[in-house]
Amino acid sequence: MADERAGRPRRRYDPDRRDRIVEACLRVVGEVGVAGASNRRIAAAADVPLGSMTYHFADTDELLREAFTRFAHRVSDRFDAALAQAHDADEARRAVVALVVHDVLADPHELVVTHELYTLAARDPGYRRLTHAWMARSRRALERHFDPTTARLLDALIEGLTIHRALDVEPRPPTEVEEAVTRITTA
Amino acid sequence: MADERAGRPRRRYDPDRRDRIVEACLRVVGEVGVAGASNRRIAAAADVPLGSMTYHFADTDELLREAFTRFAHRVSDRFDAALAQAHDADEARRAVVALVVHDVLADPHELVVTHELYTLAARDPGYRRLTHAWMARSRRALERHFDPTTARLLDALIEGLTIHRALDVEPRPPTEVEEAVTRITTA
Repeated sequence: MADERAGRPRRRYDPDRRDRIVEACLRVVGEVGVAGASNRRIAAAADVPLGSMTYHFADTDELLREAFTRFAHRVSDRFDAALAQAHDADEARRAVVALVVHDVLADPHELVVTHELYTLAARDPGYRRLTHAWMARSRRALERHFDPTTARLLDALIEGLTIHRALDVEPRPPTEVEEAVTRITTA
Repeated sequence: MADERAGRPRRRYDPDRRDRIVEACLRVVGEVGVAGASNRRIAAAADVPLGSMTYHFADTDELLREAFTRFAHRVSDRFDAALAQAHDADEARRAVVALVVHDVLADPHELVVTHELYTLAARDPGYRRLTHAWMARSRRALERHFDPTTARLLDALIEGLTIHRALDVEPRPPTEVEEAVTRITTA
């Protein structure tokens, strides 16, 4: 209790600690990349003792895999929710345009985390299974409104448009995204 | 000369050294990512003394920028050459399909280097100028055969298709790429 009064609670009972470490890991990766995401830095960001990192995770790799899996699910949930609200193909097209222009990877940290994940997937089949599952889920969301081929092509287009918008130094008009989505969904 | 006979030439006169360091940097980044690309490792891969790294480059950042710039130019040259050989829009479409299916990022090391570059660009405006210039050059190559809007949309589509093919665990049929390219180039 003395510790607590000094602003440093011991947290003997801290059921959310594991969860907080995973969230902190994502924040740190978003800020400094996987290369800078040391156990020490993540522990500080999660406000947990360094020792509890090894208690909860066998190694950094286990923590990273769990963090990236959570990240993929979170972005996927948002995508899924937006598509689920559309009532027909036209509304779905508008939802996709809005996702590309406003939502997907608009947060610079999410953009960094996404590219870090893709870099890992380029080298490691375990991460490639994660990106595969993520893409499969996006396609299922699009298949509510489009045939499987269109869903697959549209999903690739969304990826490319999103990345190019983020990698550019000039803002691009939303009309460009509308035109692209119209063309790719028209056989 | 004694050194030379022992297989360790001194290389007092070694005009290609700087160039070799840049190439070695790209190989090392392709193998172990930016995180693992230490001066020591790059020097070993280039077969140069560690000291010559600091002679030729102020710091790792300067070396990385030069290496990524060279990489972007190289991939861009290949893209440009393939498009320059096409005589009309149909041949250009076939060239694009071949690039996506066979060439672009087919080398896993190039894929890693590309995602590493995108990750840097997500955080650093200097690298974003590089990715911007790369995209501008790709669009100019496509504008030999397509109007500016189509060139821009096609460029984004190529990005998305290439990445999704690489991130997948299942092979995808080339007909999918043909269909996507046909749709996006049809207004």
